[in-house]
Amino acid sequence: MMEKIYASYLDHLQGIHALNTALGLLGWDQETYMPPRGLHPRAAARAHLTGLVHDRVVVDHFGGLLEELGGLELPEDMAASVRETRRDRDRAVKVPRDLVTELAQTTTLAQQTWARARNTDDWPAFAPILAKVVELKRREAEAVGYQGEPYDALLDEYEPGASAADIEPVFAELRTGLVELMGVIHAAGPRHDDAVLEREWPIDGQDRLSRQVLKAMGFDFDAGRLDTSTHPFTSGTSPVDVRLTTMFDPLDLAKSLYSSIHEGGHGLYEQGLPETLAGTPLGQACSLGIHESQSRLWENQVGRSRPFMDYLAGQLKAIFPDRVSGLGPDVLYRAFNVVRPSLIRIEADEVTYNLHVLMRFELERALFRGDIEVSDLPALWNERMTADLGVTPENDREGVLQDIHWSFGALGYFPTYTLGNIYSATLFDAAGRDLPDLDAKIAAGDLAPLLDWMRTHVHAHGRRWTSSELCRRATGTGLDCTHFLDYLRTKFGALYA
Amino acid sequence: MMEKIYASYLDHLQGIHALNTALGLLGWDQETYMPPRGLHPRAAARAHLTGLVHDRVVVDHFGGLLEELGGLELPEDMAASVRETRRDRDRAVKVPRDLVTELAQTTTLAQQTWARARNTDDWPAFAPILAKVVELKRREAEAVGYQGEPYDALLDEYEPGASAADIEPVFAELRTGLVELMGVIHAAGPRHDDAVLEREWPIDGQDRLSRQVLKAMGFDFDAGRLDTSTHPFTSGTSPVDVRLTTMFDPLDLAKSLYSSIHEGGHGLYEQGLPETLAGTPLGQACSLGIHESQSRLWENQVGRSRPFMDYLAGQLKAIFPDRVSGLGPDVLYRAFNVVRPSLIRIEADEVTYNLHVLMRFELERALFRGDIEVSDLPALWNERMTADLGVTPENDREGVLQDIHWSFGALGYFPTYTLGNIYSATLFDAAGRDLPDLDAKIAAGDLAPLLDWMRTHVHAHGRRWTSSELCRRATGTGLDCTHFLDYLRTKFGALYA
Repeated sequence: MMEKIYASYLDHLQGIHALNTALGLLGWDQETYMPPRGLHPRAAARAHLTGLVHDRVVVDHFGGLLEELGGLELPEDMAASVRETRRDRDRAVKVPRDLVTELAQTTTLAQQTWARARNTDDWPAFAPILAKVVELKRREAEAVGYQGEPYDALLDEYEPGASAADIEPVFAELRTGLVELMGVIHAAGPRHDDAVLEREWPIDGQDRLSRQVLKAMGFDFDAGRLDTSTHPFTSGTSPVDVRLTTMFDPLDLAKSLYSSIHEGGHGLYEQGLPETLAGTPLGQACSLGIHESQSRLWENQVGRSRPFMDYLAGQLKAIFPDRVSGLGPDVLYRAFNVVRPSLIRIEADEVTYNLHVLMRFELERALFRGDIEVSDLPALWNERMTADLGVTPENDREGVLQDIHWSFGALGYFPTYTLGNIYSATLFDAAGRDLPDLDAKIAAGDLAPLLDWMRTHVHAHGRRWTSSELCRRATGTGLDCTHFLDYLRTKFGALYA
Repeated sequence: MMEKIYASYLDHLQGIHALNTALGLLGWDQETYMPPRGLHPRAAARAHLTGLVHDRVVVDHFGGLLEELGGLELPEDMAASVRETRRDRDRAVKVPRDLVTELAQTTTLAQQTWARARNTDDWPAFAPILAKVVELKRREAEAVGYQGEPYDALLDEYEPGASAADIEPVFAELRTGLVELMGVIHAAGPRHDDAVLEREWPIDGQDRLSRQVLKAMGFDFDAGRLDTSTHPFTSGTSPVDVRLTTMFDPLDLAKSLYSSIHEGGHGLYEQGLPETLAGTPLGQACSLGIHESQSRLWENQVGRSRPFMDYLAGQLKAIFPDRVSGLGPDVLYRAFNVVRPSLIRIEADEVTYNLHVLMRFELERALFRGDIEVSDLPALWNERMTADLGVTPENDREGVLQDIHWSFGALGYFPTYTLGNIYSATLFDAAGRDLPDLDAKIAAGDLAPLLDWMRTHVHAHGRRWTSSELCRRATGTGLDCTHFLDYLRTKFGALYA
């Protein structure tokens, strides 16, 4: 009996999964290969399919199934799966269908509006549709409900169980530590160690390098792809079809290399989720914070580490034999780790990066408290950049227009980047304790042991636990920025001694 | 009142269209970019969405709407739209849902099985799943019903209103004419005018040439794309998102050039359908026969004509300046028009091409009459090739495994190629009467007047009429192979004089 009800439950989830697979591909294609005039039918298709997903989640029959299952004594895995699905459904039933489809339609169009507005530095072209997105998200937050403040309803979608009030003290502690460290670095005087990278790096070589590094990381190209897009992203609809994007600039090797490694970290997580549980909560990522822990871990703890430079120097020599004179591992290490306050978040160094995120967190929170409006954003953005980082955008392209997130309705998403950084350091330390020769392995480009550790301690568990619980079980520590601050102090203390 | 019911009807069609848009992209992606391990979730997603489309077509509420509209006095356009939608629905309600989804699932898997079997020349690897596809299609034919023979039920899906008995005499007349013409050509002795093309043609140049020619044809790259795939095809889900594929062989210029032009002809039709009627019958292609009339017209009547060679010679000189010595328009004309019985349909010349199709038509018909089984196909194929064309495949890769169509369940599809050839000649003659300086325009690469003619006489009408009626209205002649045979006799009579 229980087996039969559970089988109906899984069957229903598979139908939702099929629609989400199509939605995932429609979204990926829009950013990679869709011809520009294809936008309006695309927006209509995405809105319609999003509505169908909503219908299938909220349908009474499914609610009844979940009620029944909730009343049964289930094995632990099944119970976790049902608990998480009920969580999703409880949220979905509160949001009116019209709002769901209007958000899907509006955000599809807003993405294109944003891309054009950014290219032409035209904030007024983007502001009205962003105001509409914010208004729709405010309605969503009210519909979903919250204990503390409206922003919690949004945050909860990306970081289940987290609230602004919970993460605020952690972020405050982090800010204090970062400001202190920036003071030390500032006192050491400016460094321009990255000037050595200023040369032309042919795109085909950069592409080969990205693929080589991704293979070394363990990314399976038979179950995934690497393409290009304006804003790099990862799209995973199943562990056997995971798509990364990167971007190439012939004068900037770091851009494609670290975009590829970052997205590769996301991709490894998606490929490592249990394939047989695809479409169910235990086959889905725990949270975006944990997702970012994986991308940032590969990008920074691995990709910007001193051991990795031994491996990277060899790869560069093989791919760009006539362009790497003077680029030994120590030189590369300093070049890829210059700390310098700058305007663009995704190009920021590890120390200043989180100040970009904290600013966005505070602006978003104020927006949803109703303290500020969309029209206030450009000026507030520039003020905060000046106050926090000492640099002021000369235009909105380098300021408020730089990120794609708000255009697709991802408000409440930014804090997960900093949560990811915090978790990444905690996880990497724990992996290092279990794998004592990890540095030597990384230096040799043997990254399989680290991936195995992540597979076992992170990827395999899907959404079984909350992010802080997952981290605690894997490392003994929950959400705590100590490991991350220690990591930064040690690394950059030495570099800027 | 009537407006309100009609609006509900359109709204319902838009929901179906959204799902078909997603299905179109899932299919396109499978042949172009999907990583190999992504196949199984892809098959599940396609089967599920196909089931949802079926549900929405057959749902009682929609049937009721169509009944109501059928009883009203509607303006002509609306009446035609409703008539065609009822036609689609009447067919759909007869097919059990399980059969629909099993076909979708099986054919998605069979495509990959076919691709592998063809690559490794392994008929036994493909035969079992093909037998399953044929069995499912036989069940579909029985469910749909037919007046003459089971095959009619399949043919009707691609060529509405046509029956095997109707087209049989036309094909018989065509065969007689073709065999006679082949006799004349054979008597003139073998020609090897295409030997001059045997040189290396760099892929990037071939790609530029394809894009250049497609632009000259009027293909809008802001509303479409060109990619590569194993078997070239066109995927159109909306006039503003039309995707062509081609294939490149560094030693074979004709392969990519004529694949691109052929698919470009399909693409122009899709881009020329009325955008505001997308998702409704008047925004859909009339039939596959008319679709093929467009691809074959651009490929042959235009692309293999003597005037086109003036334009092409100039393009080749611009793109391959150091590889075109001796390749003047007359030389190109003879090189691209050698008649020589060969094994592969899509590489066949205009004279022998239709013998490949007629053979497939007869084999398929026998298969659905139950006169033969899937296991008989390889031997029968080779016998017929020997009898009709005087060439015998040395392996199944060059024989029964060469086409993708059966793998995706497209049985009853092949005859539309020959219907297309017949219509293309009739349409081109009529366009030539209306556009007296057409040859000069083609020679100058000014293809817009011809496209305008097709837009007005073919593309704009969607599924308003049957294919023979559309042709009759555009040209004064219905389905009649006279124009096509005259065209072949004149062209090849002169070439082989």
